Amino acid sequence: MSDFDRATAVRRRGSGSTYDPSIYDVDLDAGWSIGGRPNGGYLLAAIARAATQAADRPHPLAVSGHFLRPPAGGPAEVRTEVMKAGRTVATVRATLWQDDRACLDVLVTAGSLPEAAPDHVSTPMPVMPPPAECWSRADTDFRVELLDHVDVRLDPATVPDPKQPGDPVIRGWMGLRDGSAADALALLLAVDVAPPTVFRLGMIGWAPTVELSALVRAVPAPGWLAFEADASVVAGGWFDENATVWDSTGRVVAQARQLALVGRPS
Amino acid sequence: MSDFDRATAVRRRGSGSTYDPSIYDVDLDAGWSIGGRPNGGYLLAAIARAATQAADRPHPLAVSGHFLRPPAGGPAEVRTEVMKAGRTVATVRATLWQDDRACLDVLVTAGSLPEAAPDHVSTPMPVMPPPAECWSRADTDFRVELLDHVDVRLDPATVPDPKQPGDPVIRGWMGLRDGSAADALALLLAVDVAPPTVFRLGMIGWAPTVELSALVRAVPAPGWLAFEADASVVAGGWFDENATVWDSTGRVVAQARQLALVGRPS
Repeated sequence: MSDFDRATAVRRRGSGSTYDPSIYDVDLDAGWSIGGRPNGGYLLAAIARAATQAADRPHPLAVSGHFLRPPAGGPAEVRTEVMKAGRTVATVRATLWQDDRACLDVLVTAGSLPEAAPDHVSTPMPVMPPPAECWSRADTDFRVELLDHVDVRLDPATVPDPKQPGDPVIRGWMGLRDGSAADALALLLAVDVAPPTVFRLGMIGWAPTVELSALVRAVPAPGWLAFEADASVVAGGWFDENATVWDSTGRVVAQARQLALVGRPS
Repeated sequence: MSDFDRATAVRRRGSGSTYDPSIYDVDLDAGWSIGGRPNGGYLLAAIARAATQAADRPHPLAVSGHFLRPPAGGPAEVRTEVMKAGRTVATVRATLWQDDRACLDVLVTAGSLPEAAPDHVSTPMPVMPPPAECWSRADTDFRVELLDHVDVRLDPATVPDPKQPGDPVIRGWMGLRDGSAADALALLLAVDVAPPTVFRLGMIGWAPTVELSALVRAVPAPGWLAFEADASVVAGGWFDENATVWDSTGRVVAQARQLALVGRPS
């Protein structure tokens, strides 16, 4: 069992005194955090795992998460409701609860990802240096728990530098530190793994995600994932962030957009 | 009351024998359809109206809709549940039901749209001919009920033509036929008003939306809205469509991405 599978494992309450097969127990791992708060993509992956199991479908296709309050590491539950089970897809409402409070409300449409090669692609993989020539956590003193599990490399041209603001675009690579291959669920981690792109504008600080909607487009081939995230509009303290993820063959495997609040310096 | 306000009006069951203040009745207007099915953006606008009323917030900020089955014109209800009412935003789960079947499940994060001018924008309004020089429904025999209420003009360079396939990009203008100004809710119509962009690849046919997530970024100024939609990846019968909407001052007022199925020729 990979580190990612373990950290996002869910257990159906199919028996025992608390029997309720629509509820999945999960142990949130505080190791997958940034600044003590479990990463949003990590949470979406665990919730989508419960949702796809509830729907009995192999893959998440569309995942829409609205963030209510950040959970802490520790026990939590995913309450699921299969809203429709159709021929092509099934749709599940899945809500993460902790201490009797809803933390993250999610709609998941699940099904089988296509294996066929794309008929059309208009977002080619960005050109950037290979992972070995990119920024890694060895290049900073800032400690991010998540990076114990996820190997993130940033294109040096897009590393945030308060002394040298640039366009709000961050590119890089993602792998899992234990060497396991990222699967469709791990793509939900990949769409949220870049530092907030507004850091590139000098707007440094905790930037909470309010909503994140992701499309998973294909099961990734083994190897590094490439990602690119950019902000289109920063206004009144809000910004959007659009992310695309490619696998090692250059195929687009995930797309996402999130709405987040610009952080205040801490 | 504008035509759009009337067609998307919701009535809270605050009294009477069916008293339940979390339920809103709505009369879906078949006039806002394409091929007999009420338009997805129209449905999202009516549902978001109920959600913002339930949350007692002026505007939808992030709206994520998962489409379960197409409703018909006629009576329907929006069942709402306020998941969190916070200082900055409130999140509501709102589901459209008709004939005791869930048709469209939606999460809405609502709040107040910023009035401040953007600090950063990286998606300028596309250059295209003015509405009077664009394609309108007068240029086709194909009847679309929605166009009785919504005035859609397409940049001639992006009008789908089976004889001349092109990139899956469609640009144009949108206005309301009764001359009323589009408000924040009407932007949910604007993000879904372009013909499916895969039409430009020659893939003509009913292309059902499976999921659509929209961000509303500002209350639009009066006047024509400009939109641009494009598909990034078409694979295995699935395509994404990314849409941006600008108001008459050139401000980005909405962004959305949807997942849809490529249509089969009917």
